[in-house]
Amino acid sequence: MKYTDATIEEVDDALKRSWKAFELYRDFGLAQRAELMNAIARELEKEAENLILVAGKETHLDPARLQAELKRTIFQLESYAAACLNGAWLDARIDTADNKRKPAKPDLRKMLIPLGPVVVFGASNFPFAYSTAGGDTACALAAGCSVIVKAHPAHAETSELVAAAIKRALLAHIMPEEIFIHLHGAAFEVGKALVEHHLTRAVGFTGSLEGGRALFDIAATRPMPIPVFAEMGSVNPVFLMPKKLMQDPGSIAVQFAHSITQSGGQFCTNPGILVGIDNESLNLFIQCLHKEIEKVKPVEMLHPGIAKSFHEKRKNALQQNDVEVLSTTSFTSTELQTIPTIATVSASAFIVNPILHKEVFGAYSLLVKCGNMEEMLEVAKALEGQLTATIIATPREVNENLQLIESLKEMAGRLVLNGVPTGVDVALGMQHGGPYPATTDSRFTAVGADGIRRFARPFCYQNWDNDLLPDELKNDNPLHIWRTVNGQLTMDPVGVFTE
Amino acid sequence: MKYTDATIEEVDDALKRSWKAFELYRDFGLAQRAELMNAIARELEKEAENLILVAGKETHLDPARLQAELKRTIFQLESYAAACLNGAWLDARIDTADNKRKPAKPDLRKMLIPLGPVVVFGASNFPFAYSTAGGDTACALAAGCSVIVKAHPAHAETSELVAAAIKRALLAHIMPEEIFIHLHGAAFEVGKALVEHHLTRAVGFTGSLEGGRALFDIAATRPMPIPVFAEMGSVNPVFLMPKKLMQDPGSIAVQFAHSITQSGGQFCTNPGILVGIDNESLNLFIQCLHKEIEKVKPVEMLHPGIAKSFHEKRKNALQQNDVEVLSTTSFTSTELQTIPTIATVSASAFIVNPILHKEVFGAYSLLVKCGNMEEMLEVAKALEGQLTATIIATPREVNENLQLIESLKEMAGRLVLNGVPTGVDVALGMQHGGPYPATTDSRFTAVGADGIRRFARPFCYQNWDNDLLPDELKNDNPLHIWRTVNGQLTMDPVGVFTE
Repeated sequence: MKYTDATIEEVDDALKRSWKAFELYRDFGLAQRAELMNAIARELEKEAENLILVAGKETHLDPARLQAELKRTIFQLESYAAACLNGAWLDARIDTADNKRKPAKPDLRKMLIPLGPVVVFGASNFPFAYSTAGGDTACALAAGCSVIVKAHPAHAETSELVAAAIKRALLAHIMPEEIFIHLHGAAFEVGKALVEHHLTRAVGFTGSLEGGRALFDIAATRPMPIPVFAEMGSVNPVFLMPKKLMQDPGSIAVQFAHSITQSGGQFCTNPGILVGIDNESLNLFIQCLHKEIEKVKPVEMLHPGIAKSFHEKRKNALQQNDVEVLSTTSFTSTELQTIPTIATVSASAFIVNPILHKEVFGAYSLLVKCGNMEEMLEVAKALEGQLTATIIATPREVNENLQLIESLKEMAGRLVLNGVPTGVDVALGMQHGGPYPATTDSRFTAVGADGIRRFARPFCYQNWDNDLLPDELKNDNPLHIWRTVNGQLTMDPVGVFTE
Repeated sequence: MKYTDATIEEVDDALKRSWKAFELYRDFGLAQRAELMNAIARELEKEAENLILVAGKETHLDPARLQAELKRTIFQLESYAAACLNGAWLDARIDTADNKRKPAKPDLRKMLIPLGPVVVFGASNFPFAYSTAGGDTACALAAGCSVIVKAHPAHAETSELVAAAIKRALLAHIMPEEIFIHLHGAAFEVGKALVEHHLTRAVGFTGSLEGGRALFDIAATRPMPIPVFAEMGSVNPVFLMPKKLMQDPGSIAVQFAHSITQSGGQFCTNPGILVGIDNESLNLFIQCLHKEIEKVKPVEMLHPGIAKSFHEKRKNALQQNDVEVLSTTSFTSTELQTIPTIATVSASAFIVNPILHKEVFGAYSLLVKCGNMEEMLEVAKALEGQLTATIIATPREVNENLQLIESLKEMAGRLVLNGVPTGVDVALGMQHGGPYPATTDSRFTAVGADGIRRFARPFCYQNWDNDLLPDELKNDNPLHIWRTVNGQLTMDPVGVFTE
């Protein structure tokens, strides 16, 4: 181990320093926060070559993928900085006084304010975009929170480099260095101490169900409970309707073979379950899928622990009643690599076996064959909460299966029609989250600028003089943000008639 | 006991029926939900006379207060219905596709959808506004959730009458009757079973810290944790700055004497702690307050249990080191009544004694005398999370004590300047919530239409045909709601250039 775990004393010290920095940072205006985030983006750009080299060595992800991920990370910082500036996320509401009303109506002005120090646990599968300077950090900084990142041990050196880039951005802009603190902690005790600390105000986590739930439980049993936003992955079921499938089984199969196996299948939106009606169109789809999977070269997984888990879970899944291998890669895999695999099972065997409902993290997908639509609906109802669900269907098939659509809505945070669930666009319209166990809080998103709201709470100023209010709530709207004034969304100054 | 507690079997049956009703109700449009809420308001109006009579008998609150509370309840239903129709709360976001981008940008459309059956525990101190057809129920119905209310045993008959009014509204509008289900449960086991049930999706609670935390703990340890919005009251500290106090000690004292004692002090925003600098202006304030408190007639409390608790907690507080009675009512109180009381203590004794930081629910307030501003800041820092904090200050005193202001912001959900914390206006600008232990989730409000969001989660449609989308997200914006389209807030149809 190149880096030493933080001690309990170091964790305590880090939180105290983080709180002090928070006391300064929370009063930084939106423009200054955006400036910091853009500066971090610039520092990452400058360091790109080295970052990709080191991350490649640590994660075995190929340079093109890492390049794209770093670009995404930079885009996140920039677009959340723009959202921060735009200020719509503040949910500013102004209700002006009415002294004629009995009882008199007070002046009420509300906006979101930051929660306090946020602890971020990076993801093993996204060394940039969901780690040290990733989505959680960007959202917390936009909200006005200080951040403590616990480096993921599988890419600790990459994390060090990113942390150094953030520090350079802070120093260059003469901001308190400890707005951002970086710690190592391969042992669970470090994470536990970070979540338990009385100054910690929120937690962002991307990883396994076991890890996420453990942190959630620690946070919920604190004297003062705090929110944990744990994104814990899912199997992202895909429902294949026969008519749509029949239109072009070949290209749908090509699309899914790619979605299932890209980057070794190491995506939380990887389609791990395919559900179809056992007929001619499914057979054609299977034939094409088979050919595609055979061609996929195994890749080395993120780290030996993940590879070991893949092989164990795959083996266990394949040993379940009625499960058969449909196709695998034609190449030989080492124990550090994925074995791109499609297995198959009957709906009846699937429904009663919860082991088959669980994620096999890696390039693996299970095709569930149903006798009819009723059975497909039963499969849907048997599944737990998911980040995404996908349906391949004609408009008519959608309209004729509204009960299935309702089941998918109930289950997931995002419902894809005639596409693949992988490829999580960074946009306000994106929802990356979903009912438990996909996440611990389905009411928030981990991707897109709405994620900023995870780290803020509404705060109301009652009866404050205009001069004493923060700029966001002053009468003349100096920041030119959207506000709801006496029930009307507007950018106008208070007092000007709108609509 | 006039009403029988629901059995575990009845709870299970209620949740199953509620879920079935939810499956129908969630597809009701905004207009239909608003129609239902307005219909409930009309039914409550029709029943007003009887409701006030029965509630008066059960809670001992006077008719004028109950009349005002019923009016507020009706206003809540109507104004949340209007907010529901307005649709801004849906946070609709549309990002249109861009096929030229590499990789192609999908069409993403997001809005809030309802969580599922919501269990509501009514408040003892608000038989109408925060009980059966109160804020939580109104918000849940607006969100599209079905509701199960557990009647508060202290006003079970009032609850029955309100439930009957809701049922009449549902029947008159030919809506599934079981969108709303009413149960009794004086025993904790009933509430526990309701929160534990696997079909329950969220909980609204107004009451004691002990009760709220117990429900929170149950919800957090479920296999699938669910949110609990528990509003557990607070001491709502008031900080009296000497210069402002000196300007008009008399009328400030009159204002606070009223705020502390109205309705027997049985408000969660009751100012339970006053903090001042021990000098001339405070002495003048104390003299006036003393005269006012002497004049206050004791009233019978909500129920014998609350009266017993008031007398015990008051007695215990008065026995603490350095605590002295400053003034009490000049009338004799029975054991069922409050004893309007102001006690006093030095800041040094207060800071080290957590018993004095706790709420004495009723007409009781503790005046903390500080030697100087530093001590006042220490008092602020010693306090836990609060619904409100209040500061009586000149603009200059605000600007000269920004550290104190920051402490108050950190502590509370609402910060009142030169006013009283009681009187919680139903408005979008209101925040009724605050850091733990004031509530279990400071990120939401229990008053104002923003409370609707407690019972909804974001859901994204990716790549859906326009015809298949819900009206809220269709291109032509048939519901005429505010949406963020490609980053711009607008009511325009998609495709029309905005700003």
